[in-house]
Amino acid sequence: MPQNRFNTIGLIIRQQCAKHRSDIDMICQTLAAHGDLRVHCLDQSEGLPGYPACSLDQIGEQADLAVSIGGDGTLLSAARQLVDYQIPLVGINLGRLGFLADVTMQGLKQHIDAIFNGDYSVEQRFLLQGEIHLQNQPSQRYIALNDIILHSHQSISMIEFEVFSDQQLINKQRADGLIVATPTGSTAYALSGGGPIMHPSMDSIALVPICPHTLSNRPIVLPAHQQIEIRISHPDQAGLVSFDGRSQAVIEQGDRITIERYRQQITLLHPADYDYFHILRAKLKWSNQP
Amino acid sequence: MPQNRFNTIGLIIRQQCAKHRSDIDMICQTLAAHGDLRVHCLDQSEGLPGYPACSLDQIGEQADLAVSIGGDGTLLSAARQLVDYQIPLVGINLGRLGFLADVTMQGLKQHIDAIFNGDYSVEQRFLLQGEIHLQNQPSQRYIALNDIILHSHQSISMIEFEVFSDQQLINKQRADGLIVATPTGSTAYALSGGGPIMHPSMDSIALVPICPHTLSNRPIVLPAHQQIEIRISHPDQAGLVSFDGRSQAVIEQGDRITIERYRQQITLLHPADYDYFHILRAKLKWSNQP
Amino acid sequence: MPQNRFNTIGLIIRQQCAKHRSDIDMICQTLAAHGDLRVHCLDQSEGLPGYPACSLDQIGEQADLAVSIGGDGTLLSAARQLVDYQIPLVGINLGRLGFLADVTMQGLKQHIDAIFNGDYSVEQRFLLQGEIHLQNQPSQRYIALNDIILHSHQSISMIEFEVFSDQQLINKQRADGLIVATPTGSTAYALSGGGPIMHPSMDSIALVPICPHTLSNRPIVLPAHQQIEIRISHPDQAGLVSFDGRSQAVIEQGDRITIERYRQQITLLHPADYDYFHILRAKLKWSNQP
Amino acid sequence: MPQNRFNTIGLIIRQQCAKHRSDIDMICQTLAAHGDLRVHCLDQSEGLPGYPACSLDQIGEQADLAVSIGGDGTLLSAARQLVDYQIPLVGINLGRLGFLADVTMQGLKQHIDAIFNGDYSVEQRFLLQGEIHLQNQPSQRYIALNDIILHSHQSISMIEFEVFSDQQLINKQRADGLIVATPTGSTAYALSGGGPIMHPSMDSIALVPICPHTLSNRPIVLPAHQQIEIRISHPDQAGLVSFDGRSQAVIEQGDRITIERYRQQITLLHPADYDYFHILRAKLKWSNQP
Repeated sequence: MPQNRFNTIGLIIRQQCAKHRSDIDMICQTLAAHGDLRVHCLDQSEGLPGYPACSLDQIGEQADLAVSIGGDGTLLSAARQLVDYQIPLVGINLGRLGFLADVTMQGLKQHIDAIFNGDYSVEQRFLLQGEIHLQNQPSQRYIALNDIILHSHQSISMIEFEVFSDQQLINKQRADGLIVATPTGSTAYALSGGGPIMHPSMDSIALVPICPHTLSNRPIVLPAHQQIEIRISHPDQAGLVSFDGRSQAVIEQGDRITIERYRQQITLLHPADYDYFHILRAKLKWSNQP
Repeated sequence: MPQNRFNTIGLIIRQQCAKHRSDIDMICQTLAAHGDLRVHCLDQSEGLPGYPACSLDQIGEQADLAVSIGGDGTLLSAARQLVDYQIPLVGINLGRLGFLADVTMQGLKQHIDAIFNGDYSVEQRFLLQGEIHLQNQPSQRYIALNDIILHSHQSISMIEFEVFSDQQLINKQRADGLIVATPTGSTAYALSGGGPIMHPSMDSIALVPICPHTLSNRPIVLPAHQQIEIRISHPDQAGLVSFDGRSQAVIEQGDRITIERYRQQITLLHPADYDYFHILRAKLKWSNQP
Repeated sequence: MPQNRFNTIGLIIRQQCAKHRSDIDMICQTLAAHGDLRVHCLDQSEGLPGYPACSLDQIGEQADLAVSIGGDGTLLSAARQLVDYQIPLVGINLGRLGFLADVTMQGLKQHIDAIFNGDYSVEQRFLLQGEIHLQNQPSQRYIALNDIILHSHQSISMIEFEVFSDQQLINKQRADGLIVATPTGSTAYALSGGGPIMHPSMDSIALVPICPHTLSNRPIVLPAHQQIEIRISHPDQAGLVSFDGRSQAVIEQGDRITIERYRQQITLLHPADYDYFHILRAKLKWSNQP
Repeated sequence: MPQNRFNTIGLIIRQQCAKHRSDIDMICQTLAAHGDLRVHCLDQSEGLPGYPACSLDQIGEQADLAVSIGGDGTLLSAARQLVDYQIPLVGINLGRLGFLADVTMQGLKQHIDAIFNGDYSVEQRFLLQGEIHLQNQPSQRYIALNDIILHSHQSISMIEFEVFSDQQLINKQRADGLIVATPTGSTAYALSGGGPIMHPSMDSIALVPICPHTLSNRPIVLPAHQQIEIRISHPDQAGLVSFDGRSQAVIEQGDRITIERYRQQITLLHPADYDYFHILRAKLKWSNQP
């Protein structure tokens, strides 16, 4: 069991609404008993009354441990911004169990205390970096923990595009779009699109076509070290590229997206009895069959 | 075999480009040998040199037979505009076989002559009428031969909506959208979305969820006489409604779409040896297995 | 509301085990208060102590109403055997809600009393009749309420077969098998095979290929009045044909199965507030999303 | 480019039928020009007239290179029997292109000569080893290059089973069966069952449920080093276990199958311009869209 000293704790909060205020206070008190607490509210400028407000970058620079309160989306957001600081992340879910935010309010104190006693399970999750190469413009880079998605820019219409793996053509498709998902993202949107579940320890990505015109066009799992490239192949079409659901760029014929494994991974801390398959069973309702 | 007199023929053309000009001339000559020919070009204002140009409405009023040259999209467009005039429609495909435009250039003259000799197969296809009820506005109506689709207005994001059948709740979904397809549309976009193929003689519609969040949310086939209603159920989301791929309205919470079988059907004339399953086998490449 | 007199009630029981005995007694007493009760136990020769035992045929001949206690399987079995007698059928489920057996122990007396007061909803469900034509043998006929399935006779191997609709070739397939499902069966095995849900009021059947080799080979919905024919097309392969899950015949090249709508329908009585979509939501867990 | 000396060549032939005899002679002559040729016919006892007949084990012991003539099935069979001898394998396809047997008769001499000149591409493919633990019996081991499949022993019926990964429960399922596929097998039966395509360089396996009762039960991709265990969980059911399509054992409640990566890999030699995605496009007909 690793020896730990989390002296400064950064807390990232999505919703500070009244109905959860007592839960949040309880979490803050539990955490403050273990170290110096800094708070960042994603949704608003002011912090949490009674605690020093700070930016996510300040948390990255100063904290030894980041705690995200909210759902998987809050943790995704925190992970992307903290990944370069290499501090571990814990996700607390105020509502139901999340795929990523797996500490729930039941037994909260016990879980938190255990973590500060070094009793936890450590997991690395890799992110994707996408680089958007627009013609005659400097390229832009964004990262994603779940997925990078190309989608038709018009919400109802197919686009035609080519996909390459390490410069080699995979195929030319007509579809609503394409999901490039990490194992973390394989239980998110990619699953709705028909993609497989990939175990989080896999160093792989899945290419999942969205409503492909060719019915034999199926999800493909590739090693994460292969570089993916996507090009729009029709002169009259445009694609929208999103990272973890946030749209970032419109691409047209002549533009390119390249996607590869990001150089840094995020470290998640889980309760010591963490069981990925248990979460799958609960979230996908495998356990209680009608 | 019904006795026919197609004295005036309306021709609807999508592409009048140079490379097809000789084919189009050949079709025009073949048709003109059988009756009075009127030409409407969908893409441009002027008609076809040498033939009287006219509007689609004029074709509807004056012609006994409408002939569409192009792909399935051209025929879809012609069908929607001619359905109220109750004139039969033939689709000629300049390229490969279409699902709807099933007369190809091979054996064109023979097929055309056969039709004017009364040697053809008649098929009725029903359309859907969607009525969009925006709050505090008069409702708008549109028709579709393939499908009416609700899609998230933002190209990458789920929407939450409720679906009703004759006022009865079917379900509340989170998905990219919902396809309401006729049998004609069941081999178009709905098929890419995972919907079943429905035989054109079926009086049924398919509700096909697009990338549904709940994995047990599956395509449902309903009698076409049931009225479908869709409502956006999330206050911050908007949906785009399209008819045969043409976007027509943005709806928000409080707005509604109602969908029902249109009162008129379109009549398609096929070659006498028309075989729906043959077209399926050819289009879906069932015949030549690797 | 129809006027009813159910003077003689036939009860069909699957499980008479000790743990359900008090429930069964309660049901019997509730029913016996309304008419003359006859009991048939599917699993064993003796009847239920205290009630006259009788065969299913006797129930068909003597009863005005048949009540099935058990799950959907018990009702399926009763329906097949009673369909020619044209008596209505009610399904009571001792456990969780069934698709067909939709009266549960909660509010049992109220539901039963309502039915005898004429306060119920009536629904017709059609069955399929399959005729197996083995070479040089008289053909055999069986009926099914859910589905008729052709499956490779060896549990792990594809078979090659041709499917026809009214003598017209649909396709030649290589697959583990083919499910021919009624709307009633569309929520059973066919759903696991990727078939669509068909509303029970549909007069349609679904052909659902099981693990088809050709990926574009998709479920097809046809009018129920079309006759389906299946032939094994490989000389070294054999197929097993089952009706509602009961295997009945092995077929080889040269043999044929023809399937058509059975001449009689079964009448189901539901509680007056019966809502098919409610049952779908409950059984497919659409309502409570994680 | 590796330096090679293939002095003794073992040839494995599936079909020696008359229509291919001239092709086979041509292949033999081409190979015999490069080394000492030994021939094994899978289907019959005698060898090929004019060449010394030998067993597959003799090929394993004596040959430096094994060449399989036939389809993917012939190569699968050769691979399983030669894997422990660690000799490389080339697949020649007399008919259409195979996923594995990727040397076709066009340009045969050129391809063969290139291989003996050291001009080829080398690829490792891993196999699975399954160990069947029947109660009170010594366990049996078999290997597979494509897949190990558990299927209901009765061809038409679900079975209930539990699946574990490194002793950890993944889930309890009711389904027709479960496919455990290698990347090599991911384009075979697993693809028909809805599994993803996995790149051959992946060190992963896919668990693909066959017609699962729970619709959210989806294919799972796991690292190949995880040990999979399957147990029948219903007392009245039996499962059949097959390896690359050959049934090997019937298991019941109390029995277990454990599956892991086999200790040896098979080495495939491909033409130097080998392109996995090209084969995918050709076999799955991605290239020529209708």
